[in-house]
Amino acid sequence: MPKNEKKSNHIILASYSNLKYKETLPIKWGAKTALERGPIVASVSNSKARNAIGAHGGSYTVYRALSIASGKFPTLHKPDLHNTQSPAKIGPYDQWFDSTKIVALDPWGLDPQLHFKSYFDQGYDIRPTIACTQAHLQIPELNQAIEAGRLKKDGKIIKDNGDICVTKVAIEPVWYLPGIATRIGVEEGVLRKTLFQETGGMYPEFITRPDLKAWLPPIGSTTVYIFGNPSDLAHPEIELTCRVHDECNGSDVFGSDICTCRPYLMYGIEDAARTAQRGGVGIIAYYRKEGRALGEVTKFLVYNARKRQEGGDSAATYFKRTECVAGTEDARFQEFMPDPLHFFGIKKIHNLHSMSNMKYDAIVRSGIEVVNRISIPDELIPGDAKVEIEAKKAAGYFSKEAPKSGESLKKIKGRDIDEN
Amino acid sequence: MPKNEKKSNHIILASYSNLKYKETLPIKWGAKTALERGPIVASVSNSKARNAIGAHGGSYTVYRALSIASGKFPTLHKPDLHNTQSPAKIGPYDQWFDSTKIVALDPWGLDPQLHFKSYFDQGYDIRPTIACTQAHLQIPELNQAIEAGRLKKDGKIIKDNGDICVTKVAIEPVWYLPGIATRIGVEEGVLRKTLFQETGGMYPEFITRPDLKAWLPPIGSTTVYIFGNPSDLAHPEIELTCRVHDECNGSDVFGSDICTCRPYLMYGIEDAARTAQRGGVGIIAYYRKEGRALGEVTKFLVYNARKRQEGGDSAATYFKRTECVAGTEDARFQEFMPDPLHFFGIKKIHNLHSMSNMKYDAIVRSGIEVVNRISIPDELIPGDAKVEIEAKKAAGYFSKEAPKSGESLKKIKGRDIDEN
Repeated sequence: MPKNEKKSNHIILASYSNLKYKETLPIKWGAKTALERGPIVASVSNSKARNAIGAHGGSYTVYRALSIASGKFPTLHKPDLHNTQSPAKIGPYDQWFDSTKIVALDPWGLDPQLHFKSYFDQGYDIRPTIACTQAHLQIPELNQAIEAGRLKKDGKIIKDNGDICVTKVAIEPVWYLPGIATRIGVEEGVLRKTLFQETGGMYPEFITRPDLKAWLPPIGSTTVYIFGNPSDLAHPEIELTCRVHDECNGSDVFGSDICTCRPYLMYGIEDAARTAQRGGVGIIAYYRKEGRALGEVTKFLVYNARKRQEGGDSAATYFKRTECVAGTEDARFQEFMPDPLHFFGIKKIHNLHSMSNMKYDAIVRSGIEVVNRISIPDELIPGDAKVEIEAKKAAGYFSKEAPKSGESLKKIKGRDIDEN
Repeated sequence: MPKNEKKSNHIILASYSNLKYKETLPIKWGAKTALERGPIVASVSNSKARNAIGAHGGSYTVYRALSIASGKFPTLHKPDLHNTQSPAKIGPYDQWFDSTKIVALDPWGLDPQLHFKSYFDQGYDIRPTIACTQAHLQIPELNQAIEAGRLKKDGKIIKDNGDICVTKVAIEPVWYLPGIATRIGVEEGVLRKTLFQETGGMYPEFITRPDLKAWLPPIGSTTVYIFGNPSDLAHPEIELTCRVHDECNGSDVFGSDICTCRPYLMYGIEDAARTAQRGGVGIIAYYRKEGRALGEVTKFLVYNARKRQEGGDSAATYFKRTECVAGTEDARFQEFMPDPLHFFGIKKIHNLHSMSNMKYDAIVRSGIEVVNRISIPDELIPGDAKVEIEAKKAAGYFSKEAPKSGESLKKIKGRDIDEN
């Protein structure tokens, strides 16, 4: 049994920064090459080699641990990465070498077996945090767009059977804590302390290992769907259509009529495919931030409070109800949202499918030019979602018409709780 | 400022079981009443009152911590739960009082402000872990079912505009560690140690606080959609149609043709609605266990390895490729999956929409009777998903026809990686 595969029975509650090991590789965030940057090592098979807090797989690290506890999973398994490499070449791009442009993912996490071959050969257990594959999509709304003549089959982007060809990329979060702190405007120490305390004491290494700068948080990943050639995303002269979409399971999967999420997403996919067909490129980025990153329990509580309030559900009091229940009207942190766009080298978005001023501001502040902003067409807004969309417009969301205010905002009403 | 709202600046790296506080309420899992069971207190506003490991909101606790760090969120916010209560009465049911039937959720986590009013009055910061609301669904596949005459508008379950009325319930995980350990067949101490070590040291309280028996893991929640009257779920004489569905974002939202997830889900929703229309009740439980609880990065790596292997993607080698990359072919733990069904008092499922032998076994072993098992109709299986479905049938999934084996299994092929 090789030396690094032995596991001690002794439990170390928290490591300390005065205990450093020669196996620990330094990370130089934003460096010019993969080897200079150094690999992120978060696997637990050799604790001395770890140079990050947390574990791989986001939330799914919990299920992996259960699998191991139950004996269904070999503790010392190392992934066999043969044949798993990306079918598309992505990067490196300028933004990879700017330590402030990308702070919430590891650009070298795609195909690490190629970038860090020498370390793999030395036995380091380095895991991919990004994966890229190709797929065919079959979507009823897109078939309707084909039937209505808004989309045409071209045998390439849209096949004869209506399948839409895409390249898709899953990105697990890798947070560079100094960069995260700068992005949200706090000291790194304050960030570490708050992350530790407000999660009920998750990862004491936030406090005991100030030398560990990277964290793999147990949160959902981001998935990116690309229509057309992925390398075209980095060319500002090629027309680019983009939707940045925050998960909403109730609408995205189940078609709940209280919001515009799925209709707006489908409209974005349609336009992304069409852009690729006319020689441009489309990108849909899907972020796991359900219910404004407050989760579905909070969301459902807010729905009830909205529909039961005096005077009924109204655009005028839309944000207030979320704040009463959740403490904040939004916890999504659009500040990190542009990072996947920079991973693909994006510098210019010709058509941005999003009405959110927070998303727009974050994208523009990160140095990406936005030419046009595309709102959801009125005919796609479900009846009960008028409250949300008018409240958002009144709060600064993009729209071609002037937002409503005062009495006319109050008059925008949703279904009552007894009307179900 | 009330006493329990003061926060110390001192950082406690991990609490120890010899430091117990009079504010800490005991939990008697499976007790006959809410007050005898005791509330789960995982909020961090008063650390002495905490009787659970972890924090509320699953993964979203990380975003909440960021909000607080950035100053956008008041640290001491307590939710205003006015008007948030469930519009439907759910339970209590027999299963709530059996400490082995429910171990992965807190049945009293729905409307705790009603069950634990006296503790709220004393200032305890108890948060809901379950929320229930009502919704209207607008789903293209269901509209097609109406057009095709397979579903009829009745003005009640299916409105005149095609909207489908549902009651939906979001359930955050609350794990009772002794019960979880029993379910997966290990000692509680082994479970705690493995959860700690394999997550890279998440929550030292696994080790230092053996007296804390509940954990709120940072994983995704479960959402349940009910068609018809929720209280009918507990009556075995009323026909019940059920789909237990594990999240697959690539298919559920984006319609990827490599698996059967969305088509099978939509077929289940259609049948659940129809069952409610003929006087029965339908339930769809949606579990956040993307890519067999391995996550999308692993899933995409496996897709590539499958499509690049010698001889191409084949049903005969379907599971093998996942195991090579991920270390296990499945990490979903169907052992906990029936818990939400027991929350609703389910004792008998007349029509189970699932072909998985693991799901079926878990449901039946948990004491729920299953009358019929419904497979996905052949015409709904996308072309590239034949590999998955035939591999699963060969591995023991339910099907009316005999599973393929040997050469005929090998002949079931998917698209090649160059065919995109």
